[in-house]
Amino acid sequence: MSSIMRIGRIELRVMDLEQSADYYKNVIGLEETARDSERIYLKAWDEYDHHSIILKKADSPGMDHMAFKVKDPYELEILEHKIEQFGCKLSRVSYGSRIAEGEAIRFEIPTGHEVELYSDIEFVGTNVGTVNPDPWPDNLRGIAPHRLDHALLTGDDIETVTRFFTEVLGFRQSEKIVTVDGEQMIGSFLAITNTAHDLAFVKGPDKKFHHAGFHVDNWYEVLKAADILSKNKIHIEVTPTRHGITRGQTVYFFDPSGNRNEAFASGYITYADFPTITWTEDQIGTGIFYHRRELMESFSKALT
Amino acid sequence: MSSIMRIGRIELRVMDLEQSADYYKNVIGLEETARDSERIYLKAWDEYDHHSIILKKADSPGMDHMAFKVKDPYELEILEHKIEQFGCKLSRVSYGSRIAEGEAIRFEIPTGHEVELYSDIEFVGTNVGTVNPDPWPDNLRGIAPHRLDHALLTGDDIETVTRFFTEVLGFRQSEKIVTVDGEQMIGSFLAITNTAHDLAFVKGPDKKFHHAGFHVDNWYEVLKAADILSKNKIHIEVTPTRHGITRGQTVYFFDPSGNRNEAFASGYITYADFPTITWTEDQIGTGIFYHRRELMESFSKALT
Amino acid sequence: MSSIMRIGRIELRVMDLEQSADYYKNVIGLEETARDSERIYLKAWDEYDHHSIILKKADSPGMDHMAFKVKDPYELEILEHKIEQFGCKLSRVSYGSRIAEGEAIRFEIPTGHEVELYSDIEFVGTNVGTVNPDPWPDNLRGIAPHRLDHALLTGDDIETVTRFFTEVLGFRQSEKIVTVDGEQMIGSFLAITNTAHDLAFVKGPDKKFHHAGFHVDNWYEVLKAADILSKNKIHIEVTPTRHGITRGQTVYFFDPSGNRNEAFASGYITYADFPTITWTEDQIGTGIFYHRRELMESFSKALT
Amino acid sequence: MSSIMRIGRIELRVMDLEQSADYYKNVIGLEETARDSERIYLKAWDEYDHHSIILKKADSPGMDHMAFKVKDPYELEILEHKIEQFGCKLSRVSYGSRIAEGEAIRFEIPTGHEVELYSDIEFVGTNVGTVNPDPWPDNLRGIAPHRLDHALLTGDDIETVTRFFTEVLGFRQSEKIVTVDGEQMIGSFLAITNTAHDLAFVKGPDKKFHHAGFHVDNWYEVLKAADILSKNKIHIEVTPTRHGITRGQTVYFFDPSGNRNEAFASGYITYADFPTITWTEDQIGTGIFYHRRELMESFSKALT
Repeated sequence: MSSIMRIGRIELRVMDLEQSADYYKNVIGLEETARDSERIYLKAWDEYDHHSIILKKADSPGMDHMAFKVKDPYELEILEHKIEQFGCKLSRVSYGSRIAEGEAIRFEIPTGHEVELYSDIEFVGTNVGTVNPDPWPDNLRGIAPHRLDHALLTGDDIETVTRFFTEVLGFRQSEKIVTVDGEQMIGSFLAITNTAHDLAFVKGPDKKFHHAGFHVDNWYEVLKAADILSKNKIHIEVTPTRHGITRGQTVYFFDPSGNRNEAFASGYITYADFPTITWTEDQIGTGIFYHRRELMESFSKALT
Repeated sequence: MSSIMRIGRIELRVMDLEQSADYYKNVIGLEETARDSERIYLKAWDEYDHHSIILKKADSPGMDHMAFKVKDPYELEILEHKIEQFGCKLSRVSYGSRIAEGEAIRFEIPTGHEVELYSDIEFVGTNVGTVNPDPWPDNLRGIAPHRLDHALLTGDDIETVTRFFTEVLGFRQSEKIVTVDGEQMIGSFLAITNTAHDLAFVKGPDKKFHHAGFHVDNWYEVLKAADILSKNKIHIEVTPTRHGITRGQTVYFFDPSGNRNEAFASGYITYADFPTITWTEDQIGTGIFYHRRELMESFSKALT
Repeated sequence: MSSIMRIGRIELRVMDLEQSADYYKNVIGLEETARDSERIYLKAWDEYDHHSIILKKADSPGMDHMAFKVKDPYELEILEHKIEQFGCKLSRVSYGSRIAEGEAIRFEIPTGHEVELYSDIEFVGTNVGTVNPDPWPDNLRGIAPHRLDHALLTGDDIETVTRFFTEVLGFRQSEKIVTVDGEQMIGSFLAITNTAHDLAFVKGPDKKFHHAGFHVDNWYEVLKAADILSKNKIHIEVTPTRHGITRGQTVYFFDPSGNRNEAFASGYITYADFPTITWTEDQIGTGIFYHRRELMESFSKALT
Repeated sequence: MSSIMRIGRIELRVMDLEQSADYYKNVIGLEETARDSERIYLKAWDEYDHHSIILKKADSPGMDHMAFKVKDPYELEILEHKIEQFGCKLSRVSYGSRIAEGEAIRFEIPTGHEVELYSDIEFVGTNVGTVNPDPWPDNLRGIAPHRLDHALLTGDDIETVTRFFTEVLGFRQSEKIVTVDGEQMIGSFLAITNTAHDLAFVKGPDKKFHHAGFHVDNWYEVLKAADILSKNKIHIEVTPTRHGITRGQTVYFFDPSGNRNEAFASGYITYADFPTITWTEDQIGTGIFYHRRELMESFSKALT
């Protein structure tokens, strides 16, 4: 019952704008919708809005900010007030700061990440249109995900950031990872939609970005994604497997700046009254990689 | 932003309770959770609540009622008030009227169907549990859908019933079918979740039931469903195909009383700001059966 | 233990050469490898030889001939002798009769169809090459089958044509359809490889062509094939389903001249010692279309 | 054109007969067809012959022998003669040495492994039967492969063992791995059927067993296999991925004695005239694991 509709965009810091654009357009298969000297704007084929990924030229990789789309400006104002009451530093991003975007509010969440909320963005539409549409357009390239799906961030205080997203922004916690004694939460999976997660946090350094997940249709599309990555000689960190958490099917890899990407399929549908699923830390390997049953070092360590 | 969480149950009228239970348990693969002399209660393996399908002994097939689960009794009261204001006949279903259910409100929607809203039902849980769960349980039988997914009903006044569900109950219209001149709406696909539809109406006689859709995971599960139906010599009305509307993958068939069932996979994810997709009546065949591109007579005529 | 390696090519009569080429190249997704004023030569992406489909300009649709590739000219001579002994009319097709082909022998089988055997054809290779190849090439178009898989022909005397292919050419019968009294064979599925069939015959008029089957990888590729056909407004005669016979997954449709095509996936692997599977005529519907359990009229009647 | 039809059986040495039988029956999903004090005999659901896996009580794991089925005793004699001429040590295994088997010939191949050829084994059949069969039987358990598919063995002299299988037994080499200078063959993939491989050798110690591959239908069945292994807490060495070599989809794991198993799907179809595909040693990682692009230590080292 939140007024937040979904994850709307992630702005990623990349070191070589052209090389990154080539990767996100030809390997991931996003469409470029605009660019200026500092940023390239991209959308997935099945998204209606102007962009969901912004590549921003920077000296180091990472996430500049992620943003959630809110139903309307009135609801945005209500949320702004609640966020300030929670004690977050908050500012306004004015119209025209980035291409095709209206006003946004920007604030620092308890893990130090910058998050924005907005309701105004240019409508672009899709190539199948909205009248008697085909199920998919011609001329798809690369992995061709349907949309940006979710992000995973790290932070020190998982309890507080979870409280912020659930109590202030109306997310539900679909799953959590707790220490074996049950005393501490070290992972938190948060949904604002009926998908298994729109955002997740795991214990780690503040302000760090773990990955952005793109939605692909099914397990065969995960295979196709992995094939395309290998054809393009892109290092696959985690080859196709299933998550215990979300039950989703997945492959992980890195963009040219070292930002981790995921092609993700088929997590379950969840509802507001579903109980939060609990994973105990001793089973975290199984929770993250259901087939491997253990974490690999890079997956915990490689953050941007 | 509705307080309605999802389709919660459908009570189907069946002529032979035992034969129907055998079908829903061994072919569909639901679990029986309770029964009395008049009704058998069933749930899908991935549902937490006590039941989503009730089979009720009757002289003729059809739908006794369908019900949506609301977040809490307070929200239920607000909705009750709105429904009365809209002018629907409304009554209270008292605690204990059916097994494992609390109070509900029951009302007649503009197409004459009986619909209930409730927030209280016994929690049963699933066989994988909520602590370090496996992605699926052992000993699944039959088609083994994850959950009840949606229903399709027929009625004369699609415009008004759409207005009722959107304005009063907070559904969004994901897709619609209109006459070629655009004057009249003859199909309406309504979502209260992020799935492509939780309920749909097509032009036809009032009070009639077209089908109940069960969610299966993917296109291979649709094949498995069709194989299982054929192994059990159950007539498949529509062999595996894709819908234009919802993009879902589907197979249609009938229960022993003639109530139509569907195994449905993979419709798109939709959000509150997505435009309503329009199908024109001349393309209705493609909209319903994307590969066949035309309707078959039985699909319009066989209603219960 | 036959010296015949596989179905090598089918020459189809088509009424409009350009329109047909457009269909076979852009919808089916074959590559054009040569053409002259009368014929266009095509291969599938995963075939090494110069062509597997020849389109020949004609006044009526149908199959000019189909041909099997034999291991070497010596074995071809042995087979030539056996075929003559069986009593077939036989002639030599000289080098240069068609592009990229060497000599062939041509003969009329008991159902009146023209069949050729050859061992010499130009080697073209595939886009993935034979050194450290990727599993699939870039820039696939349309349905993009791996290869020509099999053909189905009709004829009056199924027993004799079966005897010809098994006794003279070394095929095995993987499956057969017989009248309920077991007296007469009305369908015969013949394999020269370990696939479920390379050639099949069903009772019907002599000299007629039922369909050419192209191999696609899996059930999702069958869905993709059907989607592509619908996107191209090509009539799908049989939407995605499973065969009882061969267990394969299938979709049937027609080329612009009315020659039936099939995208076929996943039939079983068979061996020389496997028993012939028997279908009785009363179950022929289930044998052909496992989900529908009955034949449709067009499938028996539309022949070229 | 060989008289060898397929890989017929592998006899595996296992240390705990009951524990191993439990694994092969309930996790792999084979059926037990016979047992005595020393051996348990198993078949896959889609195999007609009495057994394809024999578990033999032993002090150490490994392969006692593997055997190929030959068309008839006459052809067996011809092969016996050729094998002796090649210089292999050869003996007769007399009728009754193992349950349900007739006579066999047994010989040591150039890598020191014991191999048998036979034509006589009891016919058991399948649960779907050979008259109007369903595509799959009810009550499948575990991974439920269709059949034993292939084996991979190690040895010092890959060239000679390849020459033995191609020149003496009529196998074709579908793929090979060579040193970068092209001087030495270090991997050899051999087919006697139209599948991508029935037997393979990689450079390593003589007499060692690398894995037995079981055929599953498709990429979703590979996922199901991996899920089942994880549910049963069985270590998965290689999570679902694609092979460059054969293009097959795969998951690797171990039986309770440490013998490696594979669930394998979807390799290509190959023919006698196809060129041998070459992988250079620098690309061996990509050849074996197309997504990972490098070998893992255990995969080379863990042999039985």
